[in-house]
Amino acid sequence: MPRLWNETIEAHRREVRDAILDSTAALVAEHGLRSVTMSQIAEKTGIGRATLYKYFPDIEAILSAWHERQITGHLGHLLHVQAQAGGAGERLAAVLEAYALLSHESRGRHDPVLTAFLHQGEHVTRAHQQLRDLIRDLLAEGSATGVMRDDLSPDELASYCLHAISAASGLSSKEAVRRLVTVILAGLRPAS
Amino acid sequence: MPRLWNETIEAHRREVRDAILDSTAALVAEHGLRSVTMSQIAEKTGIGRATLYKYFPDIEAILSAWHERQITGHLGHLLHVQAQAGGAGERLAAVLEAYALLSHESRGRHDPVLTAFLHQGEHVTRAHQQLRDLIRDLLAEGSATGVMRDDLSPDELASYCLHAISAASGLSSKEAVRRLVTVILAGLRPAS
Repeated sequence: MPRLWNETIEAHRREVRDAILDSTAALVAEHGLRSVTMSQIAEKTGIGRATLYKYFPDIEAILSAWHERQITGHLGHLLHVQAQAGGAGERLAAVLEAYALLSHESRGRHDPVLTAFLHQGEHVTRAHQQLRDLIRDLLAEGSATGVMRDDLSPDELASYCLHAISAASGLSSKEAVRRLVTVILAGLRPAS
Repeated sequence: MPRLWNETIEAHRREVRDAILDSTAALVAEHGLRSVTMSQIAEKTGIGRATLYKYFPDIEAILSAWHERQITGHLGHLLHVQAQAGGAGERLAAVLEAYALLSHESRGRHDPVLTAFLHQGEHVTRAHQQLRDLIRDLLAEGSATGVMRDDLSPDELASYCLHAISAASGLSSKEAVRRLVTVILAGLRPAS
């Protein structure tokens, strides 16, 4: 049964790949981007250097893959939150709070050079676009059902939300992040 | 009367300096940052190259000085708007609209490398801090007089305003910018 055998190999490859990403993230968090070597990563993962190079050509490629996995996880979390029961108002509130808390948690965790490097990837642009679409669709639904203002287009309202929410990364506590989300939502109420 | 003579020289130097900044800004806008030379700047200003070098060592120094003059002008405009008659609500609305329109007008006018270079200057940090203080003081006054919400600190509300308003640079028209300001202000109304 070559199919099953191939699936086993595929599953093994994914596990090794995930383990490499985890080891690298831990080493970079501990020692900083510039001092981590491919040998350290191989050792921490428990594989040989030759095997490591079969998966990734260099540390930059590993970090990109790690970041893509993080972003995909975050986006999955937001899609899950969005799919909960409730009207557009409650679902938008839940998505904005979840996204604001994610932004808040990753604030200042990486050095600026690493952040700039990670954010130049195409997967970041794609994830931002998906998040923007998700928020815009909820706003369109909210405007159509009268729970949100309709004197601006859903696109304009999405710009407002996404820019305002970027304030979350500079706030000092989760409570402050929740207060920010309250203010953003107040701006979206139907014009009286 | 040596005092008067010094003042005349000082006024002349300021005029030449301003003319150099104007010529450089015009040349960069026309030909791009990388193709402009000190010789072109001297020629367009109507001075010799040796004179130009008495004022500025290189093009980067000229552009920094030009940007500082722009920022100072913008900040002066916002302070002027803020000093108009009216309650904290009207004055904040006027300042936010003026700032949003300035951000909107300068959108995509410069190439990204030039923008990154110009924004690393200390004068930019200082100007941002002054703008933040101005907005925070208006918010504190508005919260104290009951025309704005007081369930967040003026600092938190200022973060919300400044992040939300950065959406202005991506909007397509002045009308869209005014709509954005309406939404931001709606978020600031007292919690009912």
